[in-house]
Amino acid sequence: MTPFQHPSFDGHERICFFSESKSGLRAIIAIHDTTLGPALGGCRMWAYADGGDPLDDVLRLSRGMTYKNALAGLPLGGGKAVIVADPATDKSPALFEAFGRAVDSLGGRYITGEDVGVSDADMEVVARRTAHVRGIRATGLGDPSPFTAWGVFCAMRAAVRYRWGKPSLEGLTVGVQGLGHVGSRLAALVRADGARLIVGDIDAAKVEAARRRLDAVIVAADTVHAADIDVFAPCALGSGLNESTIPEIRAAIVCGAANNQLRTPADGLALAARGILYAPDYLVNAGGVIAIAPDRPGIDADAMKNRVARIGDTLTAVLRRAEAEGASPEQVADRLAEERIAAGRDALLRSA
Amino acid sequence: MTPFQHPSFDGHERICFFSESKSGLRAIIAIHDTTLGPALGGCRMWAYADGGDPLDDVLRLSRGMTYKNALAGLPLGGGKAVIVADPATDKSPALFEAFGRAVDSLGGRYITGEDVGVSDADMEVVARRTAHVRGIRATGLGDPSPFTAWGVFCAMRAAVRYRWGKPSLEGLTVGVQGLGHVGSRLAALVRADGARLIVGDIDAAKVEAARRRLDAVIVAADTVHAADIDVFAPCALGSGLNESTIPEIRAAIVCGAANNQLRTPADGLALAARGILYAPDYLVNAGGVIAIAPDRPGIDADAMKNRVARIGDTLTAVLRRAEAEGASPEQVADRLAEERIAAGRDALLRSA
Repeated sequence: MTPFQHPSFDGHERICFFSESKSGLRAIIAIHDTTLGPALGGCRMWAYADGGDPLDDVLRLSRGMTYKNALAGLPLGGGKAVIVADPATDKSPALFEAFGRAVDSLGGRYITGEDVGVSDADMEVVARRTAHVRGIRATGLGDPSPFTAWGVFCAMRAAVRYRWGKPSLEGLTVGVQGLGHVGSRLAALVRADGARLIVGDIDAAKVEAARRRLDAVIVAADTVHAADIDVFAPCALGSGLNESTIPEIRAAIVCGAANNQLRTPADGLALAARGILYAPDYLVNAGGVIAIAPDRPGIDADAMKNRVARIGDTLTAVLRRAEAEGASPEQVADRLAEERIAAGRDALLRSA
Repeated sequence: MTPFQHPSFDGHERICFFSESKSGLRAIIAIHDTTLGPALGGCRMWAYADGGDPLDDVLRLSRGMTYKNALAGLPLGGGKAVIVADPATDKSPALFEAFGRAVDSLGGRYITGEDVGVSDADMEVVARRTAHVRGIRATGLGDPSPFTAWGVFCAMRAAVRYRWGKPSLEGLTVGVQGLGHVGSRLAALVRADGARLIVGDIDAAKVEAARRRLDAVIVAADTVHAADIDVFAPCALGSGLNESTIPEIRAAIVCGAANNQLRTPADGLALAARGILYAPDYLVNAGGVIAIAPDRPGIDADAMKNRVARIGDTLTAVLRRAEAEGASPEQVADRLAEERIAAGRDALLRSA
């Protein structure tokens, strides 16, 4: 079987498998669609020792980046990379330099960045061999987490305004599941806007810090979704919205930073059937990619915050159209992304 | 499963899958090894409607090109391309231009050319989009078939000299199976050197022409190997040397142009056990790749014939070493190719 027959293949423009015996590199780079521009998407490092399929990951994630970048209004297509190796034991400068050469050999069609298992320091090594890296200090604003958190916060305010006509989160209770780079920053923004916090994380030090600094109430990480809250913000692992958790949700809004929150498309319909407003994850968490997209140093952080804040406007437009068309928000988000790509394709054909 | 787990994966440096909806292109380009230079290897077009595996083809064939190019003493690595489409119905300029762009995007790491299902005219279209094409008129000597035939002929004379100490083919009977571009030219060279011919081809017009012009005796194409001949030259499909045919061979030498003549490595040992001298196919049929390798127009055809004639010397060296080491000729040919690649790798490391 070739990748062309893989269940997650979606007309990807290019899927490249790189192997180098000297450094031990085994990597896959998938370029899903470059209609709107070069394919931007992070590089993940994972050993897949549990029998997982790196090809499935890279196919699905690169497609997701096409949609995310298009919906964020960026002049970028979607791609993704996977280094098949154990981040705990297999990292070496030679490995990341080899990956950098692989990225560079694609001539700018693919632009890489951090993702699961890959650190800022690793990406600095990649950047020795290619200029096609984003999200490191040398090329812009550095760590994109604050912008991701800011985008989720702006989306949450837009959802609250849409649902209840309220201009802020004041008086509401927000549950944040996962207090990593993004979740912890989101919690601080939510608290500063006047909401109460209920938080959960498997790391006791993180929840303790949130309790102390943000007056957060602590619950077990896997029960945040079921707490008595107005807004649920999943900021941990994917697939948190599924047939077990959705019936337990008491919040009226779900708006968080985690990727792939819905385990299946049916879970989106289940949320809608329960009257829960779901803010599509890939729309909401695009702040990071928006922040790293410009490729020039010295970008003004405040101007970038204003750019990221438009995620709230896009969410409002998606929610309105969903209501008007009787569709779910993620269906409308997908359609909007596809319309932008189709318009880009038409423009390309006219100019050809 | 990824290509990394494919049974025919052999540390290939890069395997790229290209897809373009507009032109319908689906192609795989495999770059096996570029230690000695850019990866040269033809492009095959095939629909694989019979359940064949294009990935297996491109992995095996690109590896074969690494060995062939190394053994031919060329400063080239090995690669191969497969366009997954039906040559009878799916050809279009847009398709070959898209393939040309795919080749070009590899920046010269892969150099393409004709192979099964792809014509000279098709390659001229590919060449509109990339300079990394060989074997078309614009870039050198054009059709490489005469050089392939010449190389096989030189190898056959070397084998005859090695076996019987004879300076030419005079007085011998040679069986040529397959009278395509290469087989028909080989037959003419063999006849001109004074041998009698027994030929077979599924095309009646071709055997009739050989009978008329070359005094060839005609037999059924699938019985040439079993004829009363001194030298058997398989110039048709691969896998012609197998457990059914080998016991029927009466020739003392097998030396022909077909690719992948041995169905399995065991078939090479079976030939040796029967005392049949087997001239390794990929050594013998390298004349075409030697002729197209230089990338400048205006190459002198006679100088190139002398260059190709060195295939005979290489075969003699391989046969001597095989006898000295008690190994089969194809084992020695593989080792010689691997030694050249290893030497190239050492030179690269020293210069790095």
